[in-house]
Amino acid sequence: MLVLALDLTSREKALEIVEKTRDFVDAVKVNYPIVLSCGIEIVKELSEIKRVIADFKIADIPYTSSLIAEIAFKNGANAVISHGFVGRDVLEEIMKVAENYDGKVYVVTELTNEGAREFMGQFARKIAEIAKEVGCHGLIAPATKPERVREVREVAKNLEILSPGIGAQKGKLEEIAKYVDGIIVGRSIYNADNPKEAARKIKEEFEKAKLTS
Amino acid sequence: MLVLALDLTSREKALEIVEKTRDFVDAVKVNYPIVLSCGIEIVKELSEIKRVIADFKIADIPYTSSLIAEIAFKNGANAVISHGFVGRDVLEEIMKVAENYDGKVYVVTELTNEGAREFMGQFARKIAEIAKEVGCHGLIAPATKPERVREVREVAKNLEILSPGIGAQKGKLEEIAKYVDGIIVGRSIYNADNPKEAARKIKEEFEKAKLTS
Repeated sequence: MLVLALDLTSREKALEIVEKTRDFVDAVKVNYPIVLSCGIEIVKELSEIKRVIADFKIADIPYTSSLIAEIAFKNGANAVISHGFVGRDVLEEIMKVAENYDGKVYVVTELTNEGAREFMGQFARKIAEIAKEVGCHGLIAPATKPERVREVREVAKNLEILSPGIGAQKGKLEEIAKYVDGIIVGRSIYNADNPKEAARKIKEEFEKAKLTS
Repeated sequence: MLVLALDLTSREKALEIVEKTRDFVDAVKVNYPIVLSCGIEIVKELSEIKRVIADFKIADIPYTSSLIAEIAFKNGANAVISHGFVGRDVLEEIMKVAENYDGKVYVVTELTNEGAREFMGQFARKIAEIAKEVGCHGLIAPATKPERVREVREVAKNLEILSPGIGAQKGKLEEIAKYVDGIIVGRSIYNADNPKEAARKIKEEFEKAKLTS
């Protein structure tokens, strides 16, 4: 599974890239910079072309978190991304909303940045366990830290794992492919001279890496 | 200092409450539900009446976090709220943006929900230290956990501390007043029959509690 991270702020560019890459991309991931710049309507618009994962890194108290999830699903998102470090009660509230929309909830076990090692890193495993217990659909685990992806896969069992950090952030496909169900790629696709070809190639490389690793 | 938490999704209601309470409120705090519902323009509109704290609980990788802060400040926010849990590098990037706008950065040491005790609670002190080292302006610490507010004050030294959780969330003013510079209050004001009188009374009680505690 290839998820296109639309880390852009222009509506036109976003729609253009999604149109160009649609044959090789399984879902698109939007985050706050594009949604704040273009308005929440961009989620609806993109959802008419591809499944949309609203990467809102939800990290608020349960009630506010449920409102954020509600807005995402109501506007056509197929899934939301929440943080796990804010606690089990937050994930439970978000799941209640997701169930009303037949939507999915992915939980971040740890971000790809170095600073995430300070706190989140030591809880990646525990966060994965909680996400599983609460019934969330999947996890987001950093390709920049392959040892952690392996560790998270051990406890995640059948949960879906999506992994960002391949390419511009230096994560290596061959180190994580066997542990994950999908990769999240942004710059290597939308900054390519030929985004369609870039998406095709990355998807092919991922599938090959899964078979041979 | 009294901060009004505008946990609403209606632009008209938000503007009405801010107008009614402006004599007793020092700043308004907006979060994602209202901004996603009304568009980022609501920040600009409110900032023409009162200082606005963009409570975006920023919790992404450094680059994305800096983009979110940039959008908030560009639209008139006086301050942003970031999580500290995501690591020092995130706070450093956000601070660079804040400095360009002469804006403030508040860092959440721990949320008010019970689930926040699972992970964030044990790091509240450490997060406060990092926020101080990075040069952030202040901290957000939960009135529902007075023992933690006291602990955070010890390390925060001269950093400003704002505390949510009084009122509807059952935090007690007399237990935290002496440790904090301001309180963040939402429902007890905007759901009151007379929001102006509610704001006046809460502000007076806070000031009295600070003097007597």
